[in-house]
Amino acid sequence: MLTASRRLTLLGLGALAVVPSYQARAADQPLPSWRDTAARQAIIRFVQETTDRSSPGFVAEGERIATFDQDGTLWVEHPMYSQVIYCLDRVPAVVRAKPELAHIEPFKTVLSGNRAAMAKLSMHDLEKLLFATLTGMSTDEFASEVAKWLASAKDPRWHRPFTDLTYLPMIELLQYLRANGYKSYIVTGGGQDFVRVYAQQAYGIPPEQVVGTAGAVGYRYAKDGRPVLIKEPKLLLNDDNAGKAEGIHFMIGRRPYLAFGNSVDDREMLEYTKAGDGARLALLLLHDDVRREYAYGRAQGLPASKVGTFAQALYDEATKHGWVIVSMKNDWERAFAFEQ
Amino acid sequence: MLTASRRLTLLGLGALAVVPSYQARAADQPLPSWRDTAARQAIIRFVQETTDRSSPGFVAEGERIATFDQDGTLWVEHPMYSQVIYCLDRVPAVVRAKPELAHIEPFKTVLSGNRAAMAKLSMHDLEKLLFATLTGMSTDEFASEVAKWLASAKDPRWHRPFTDLTYLPMIELLQYLRANGYKSYIVTGGGQDFVRVYAQQAYGIPPEQVVGTAGAVGYRYAKDGRPVLIKEPKLLLNDDNAGKAEGIHFMIGRRPYLAFGNSVDDREMLEYTKAGDGARLALLLLHDDVRREYAYGRAQGLPASKVGTFAQALYDEATKHGWVIVSMKNDWERAFAFEQ
Repeated sequence: MLTASRRLTLLGLGALAVVPSYQARAADQPLPSWRDTAARQAIIRFVQETTDRSSPGFVAEGERIATFDQDGTLWVEHPMYSQVIYCLDRVPAVVRAKPELAHIEPFKTVLSGNRAAMAKLSMHDLEKLLFATLTGMSTDEFASEVAKWLASAKDPRWHRPFTDLTYLPMIELLQYLRANGYKSYIVTGGGQDFVRVYAQQAYGIPPEQVVGTAGAVGYRYAKDGRPVLIKEPKLLLNDDNAGKAEGIHFMIGRRPYLAFGNSVDDREMLEYTKAGDGARLALLLLHDDVRREYAYGRAQGLPASKVGTFAQALYDEATKHGWVIVSMKNDWERAFAFEQ
Repeated sequence: MLTASRRLTLLGLGALAVVPSYQARAADQPLPSWRDTAARQAIIRFVQETTDRSSPGFVAEGERIATFDQDGTLWVEHPMYSQVIYCLDRVPAVVRAKPELAHIEPFKTVLSGNRAAMAKLSMHDLEKLLFATLTGMSTDEFASEVAKWLASAKDPRWHRPFTDLTYLPMIELLQYLRANGYKSYIVTGGGQDFVRVYAQQAYGIPPEQVVGTAGAVGYRYAKDGRPVLIKEPKLLLNDDNAGKAEGIHFMIGRRPYLAFGNSVDDREMLEYTKAGDGARLALLLLHDDVRREYAYGRAQGLPASKVGTFAQALYDEATKHGWVIVSMKNDWERAFAFEQ
């Protein structure tokens, strides 16, 4: 029997099926962009085990929680987080509003456009950039700026909107989980307010299911008397490493049954998930596909001391505790919806 | 036509219908424990306006968010928050674990059982009690202690479990909203971890829809190597007053369409809700029912300077901005499920 998307292709309407609807092809093949390898089979087995009422691993529908890292797990993070590009792109507007910044570091270096000099900015300088571009405005103004930027900004390699750089197999996984009663959360080191702007459209994940690094907001009254929330330069939740497990407790209050990450930043989230009773699935995405995307971290074959985000120690822990390593090169038939 | 619960009553099975299922009687009468006054009509009109696709106030299902204060709005808060009673009840166990505390204030006073002396404890002493009884253990241990306490503790007036003291009309309102595609959150000054223990059973509200005052948790490894989250004496979110609006942004990321409170602690939540575009409903519960519950705050007829939690200024703001005042005495036919 032809699947819905195959039929559309035969009709010359392939574009309509770029993101295949899981509902339409569930019966014959969930996760169509995944190769039928051990990784795909582990996912399908886990979902069957936790949703089949007669299985010892059955989980009631309201308790089916899954958590996903974003950068490098749901979309491209290399060579630079898109939120950092957003902050750099915002610098000219910040300097227009406060011209005295033009002669002060790190703004001077960013305005110079000298990428090599920018790469050498200190952590302290980067923080100044983040505070200047991500705080001081109302939450509504910020959301509207981000939406405007997303509509026009292009990534430097594919020359596409950043939201095109989501991984098709991951979108399919989110759909598959949703169709099976799972509520999926993004748990990201990126900015919570930033990711919430596009998570619904990009992933089908509503704002309340985005947990991220978050600053305080202050309740104020605008001139017309209406209340506004102003983004303040004060960190409330640092949602990386142990902060991911802590943030999951704080924002969700339940231990996930499935967690998916790609770097040492996700280690505690994966440990915390896997340490729960019953069936739990921890997955790690390995960026080993230099042709379709990038190869970095462990996949570069570097010595353990230099493997960057996908550290050897994490790989060893994954192997020891039965986390599933997903190879972009071997386990995915297709990485992006825009691939031919 | 007989409603489902009326039929059960006639069959002598009234107890089964103590909390009427909205689904069973929706067609003929939503909110059966509410009198058909302006308050009930305002709620029904609001729900119709926001769920009728042809109405200018229509709200897409995923965006239908409602927020509820807990203490004094969903259940009895007078004369003392039940979480404070929990903390006082926990003191003997805390002192058993650390006997040196028996001779130190405020533990000495609490152990004496002298209510008059306890009522005079300073804010600083109360904080010490909160930290001693609410932190230092794992989140799992804490949840299990609270569950144990809830199963045996009785309130001093009705001699019933505290979870019996939820207001039946509010349970019906939560059911009515749920049946109409609304996602309801508790937004409480009480402890987030405390309320999450019983919110699902008491209100049908899952842990991830409870926003409350929250302390930090720390990711640690237990002796067997399993990760645990330890509750730390460090405040992360003070979910009262402006903190309620800020907490709503932080935890939910959307402005509610309906908010329900009962005190000045809820003022900013109600203002923030009502300030949104389109149809928004803000409600305030007035405790003016000395027979069935209590009369306090403004309802006591005290001068403005002494009205306590339901301040005159709040009442004036409510009147000015079209918030709906719900009178427990006049708008509710029945307050508790256990009433005859």
